[in-house]
This record gives sequence, C-alpha cells and structure tokens, in this order.
Amino acid sequence: MRLARVAHSDGVSFVALEPDPAAPREKIVAVEIDQHPFGTPTYTGRKWPMADVRLLAPILPSKVICVGKNYAEHAAEMGSEAPENPLIFMKPSTSVIGPNAPIKLPPNSERVDFEGELAAIIGQPCKDVPEARGTEVLLGYTIANDVTARDQQKADGQWTRAKGYDTFCPLGPWIDTELDPSDLSIRTDLDGEVKQDGRTSQLVHGIGGLVSWVSRIMTLLPGDVILTGTPAGVGPMTDGQKVTVAIDGLGALTNPVQNA
Amino acid sequence: MRLARVAHSDGVSFVALEPDPAAPREKIVAVEIDQHPFGTPTYTGRKWPMADVRLLAPILPSKVICVGKNYAEHAAEMGSEAPENPLIFMKPSTSVIGPNAPIKLPPNSERVDFEGELAAIIGQPCKDVPEARGTEVLLGYTIANDVTARDQQKADGQWTRAKGYDTFCPLGPWIDTELDPSDLSIRTDLDGEVKQDGRTSQLVHGIGGLVSWVSRIMTLLPGDVILTGTPAGVGPMTDGQKVTVAIDGLGALTNPVQNA
Repeated sequence: MRLARVAHSDGVSFVALEPDPAAPREKIVAVEIDQHPFGTPTYTGRKWPMADVRLLAPILPSKVICVGKNYAEHAAEMGSEAPENPLIFMKPSTSVIGPNAPIKLPPNSERVDFEGELAAIIGQPCKDVPEARGTEVLLGYTIANDVTARDQQKADGQWTRAKGYDTFCPLGPWIDTELDPSDLSIRTDLDGEVKQDGRTSQLVHGIGGLVSWVSRIMTLLPGDVILTGTPAGVGPMTDGQKVTVAIDGLGALTNPVQNA
Repeated sequence: MRLARVAHSDGVSFVALEPDPAAPREKIVAVEIDQHPFGTPTYTGRKWPMADVRLLAPILPSKVICVGKNYAEHAAEMGSEAPENPLIFMKPSTSVIGPNAPIKLPPNSERVDFEGELAAIIGQPCKDVPEARGTEVLLGYTIANDVTARDQQKADGQWTRAKGYDTFCPLGPWIDTELDPSDLSIRTDLDGEVKQDGRTSQLVHGIGGLVSWVSRIMTLLPGDVILTGTPAGVGPMTDGQKVTVAIDGLGALTNPVQNA
C-alpha cells in the first residue's frame, strides 16, 4: 500500500493511493483514511483523483533521527571512515516539507548540499527493539533529502544548525508499506544531471540494526522518521535549481531550490 | 503566574498554581486551565489542593533546543572556550520527564552527568525574532537538567546519543511567567552536596539572543524549550543518588537516579 498526506479542496487528509504503484498517474485515486494511517486503516468513503490533490510530506514526525556516514564511499568523500557504531543526529520536525515545496537557502550559508536518503517510518511505539525485529516496527519507507549547510556543519562541530533550517528535510512522495529496501537504486540529480548514484545494499548499518540502535537510546513513536544515510556524490545546490531524489519502487522526490 | 501540568484522580491537566509563589505549599491550589496554557488562559472551575496532585513535566515540547558551553567556566572545565556564536544541539522530546521521576542510567555508559540549567519556554509560533524582542515570545521559565552520558558524548563527537536517552531531560517543577531571569542563583546539588553554583548573569549569550539565534534557524512553536547552558561543576551521578537543580524564584527540580 502507498500512504500519502494530501491537501484537497476540503482540507488535509491521510490517503491510500490506489490501485497500485504500477498504475498510470491519471488512474490513481486518493482514498481518504480516517484519522491516521497506523495499524489497519479505516476509510471514510471520500476519494479524489490525483489531479485534484497536492501531495504533502507523508507524515508529520515527532522526531527525525538521522544516521551519519552510513555509506563507506560517502564517509570517504567527507574525509573519514564509516564509524563502527551508527552515528546519530537529529533534524527538528519544523524542517520537514513535502514534494515540490521549495528548499530555502539561508543567506548566511555559502554552500547548501543535497543528500538523498532512504527514510524508514516508525509504525508503533517501541523501545529496545532487537535487531532481528527492527523492520517489524516500521510502517514503511519514503524518500528524504537531508539538506545540509556544509560550511556551518564544518564550522560548528555539532550538526544541528547546519541540518536544522526550515525546509531542510524534504520527505515524500508517499510511504510504501510493502517495499523490500535491501537492494534498491538510490539516485540524486540536480537539474537532470545525476550526482549521487548508489544502492541501499551499500548501507554500512542495515535498517533493522539502525532501528534497534536508536530504539535502545530513545522511545520511538508512530510517525518518527529514521534517515538511513546518504551515498557518495553530495554537492551544492543554488537558487533556481531543482533537486530530485529517486529510489526504485518509491518514485521520486523533487524540490525546487530558492534563496530564502 | 506559575503554570504546571499535573496528574490528578481524573487524568492530566494544565493548571495555574495559586495564590502565588510565596504562599506555603499547604495553601497552594492547582486551578485547572482549559485546553492549554498559551495566551490568556481560561479556567474550567475545577481545582485541587497540591496534596492531591502530582507535578509532571510542565510542558510537552515539540522540540528541545540546547545551547552548549554558554558559561565560560563550564567551557573551560570541558577543555575549550565559549564559542563566539551559540552552539546548539537537540534533545528528543521523549527524553522529557517531570519532577521526582527517576533518571535512568543506561547500562552501556560509564559516566552520566548532571547539568543544571535555566530553561526558556516558547509561548507563540515565531521565526526570525530580533534579539531585542527575544524574551517577548516566551511563555516563561522553568528548571532543566541536561543529563549527559559523558563518555558517549566524547566518543561520538555528535552529542545526540549522549544527551538523548529517555529520562535525560527532567523539566519542572512549573513555568513562571513573570520571572526576571537576568541575575538568578542556579545551583545543583547531589545528595545535598552543592556541585554547581552559578548565576544566570554569567550566561555568555543572553536569553533574548539565544531565542533570536535559534529562531533564525528554525520556526519555534508554543511549548518548545530552549536550555540555556550549564555553569561549571558538572559531575557524575550514580544509582541511588538524588539530584536537585534549584534556581532563585523557580524553586527546585529533584530527581532520583536509578540504573535502568
């Protein structure tokens, strides 16, 4: 199932996108889910053609946990090795935007980079999840862009400011609940030019392990998002460009880039 | 006004504590506030004597932003200088606990420290707040303990894990909306022995400046918490101890310490 959050003429709703990912876009219908998409969804009976809705970030997380240097080639391009244990940091929930919403470049940064990533969405409250059951607590997967003010990341040491600006966490276009994330192509392109081209099989710490690691530190809540790290090829974006992160089976997350 | 969140026989409510901070505890009444404490509160008419309620964390924040090395003597004891600009990091909302709730020591840390701090509570949605108006967007102030797994902080480089465990952000006992925070005594004691003894006048970056700095990065929402940094004297806590952070005019925040 593909779960989305959409704006429609009557407000904002969680929806299931039907019939299925393979259908042509003009045949897809957004079927409204009552309340929230966790557990077995119930439907209200309302539905809209895709042309009549606008996709928003598919979830509003209580927290966004990110994993640094989780592809060896990206760790190398940053001048270090992948750490033995997952290295975590956070983005504030206010940094989340949806597909096609503009990424806004702060005036005090000289270089803002894209970082295409696979994002795992937590489906139930959980703590101390064993690694072997790490993926069982997930609602599904979506695409993320871990936008980073690279100069401020280097200057501060702590990454919260560099990664925490409003609009610095594009998420979407939807959550796929049946995806097998073990070996998917993940690509980022800027104005159509491929910049990052990796595979999720290159993750240093796999998804079950990441969920387990984070859940041994903090309670995870439904809708919380874990960004699993970015492949090699990160680079800057400038005003007027368009950035797209695409993952096999999940479609593409595109955002224009603007000066704030 | 003192605003609190309490558990009572009927559930959980926001309350105002009346008549005033100077009254003896047995005369204080918790007066229920309808919905939430932002703006001009309305009252439901229900009230309880303090003996019949239990104080909880006075707010459930959407985010907790912390400022590192914001007292020069503490920066020195950590082996560095206070940074020119505020150095921010985050604690997850799941780390928040209230007065008297136990701080739980993770089994994989050799050293968990107290860090007593003054906390500012955001009162309205805001972005790009000028420094001179930084304190105008506040609901008020409370006390915080920025509990830190010191060994993991040093090992990881990023501080999210070390500062992010469940129970690592005690807040309380209440929010004072009329406090003048410019020169208050802030003390932390462990089992009655004074460990930290500073004054808020020693803050390197003042509260208005901190609110402004953070709001130029991210939108702040009602209930968001900014921890303003800890004075010199941080040190470890062990199973069975009791830690108290006291600030003039705000009372005291006490938490027992337990092995998880």
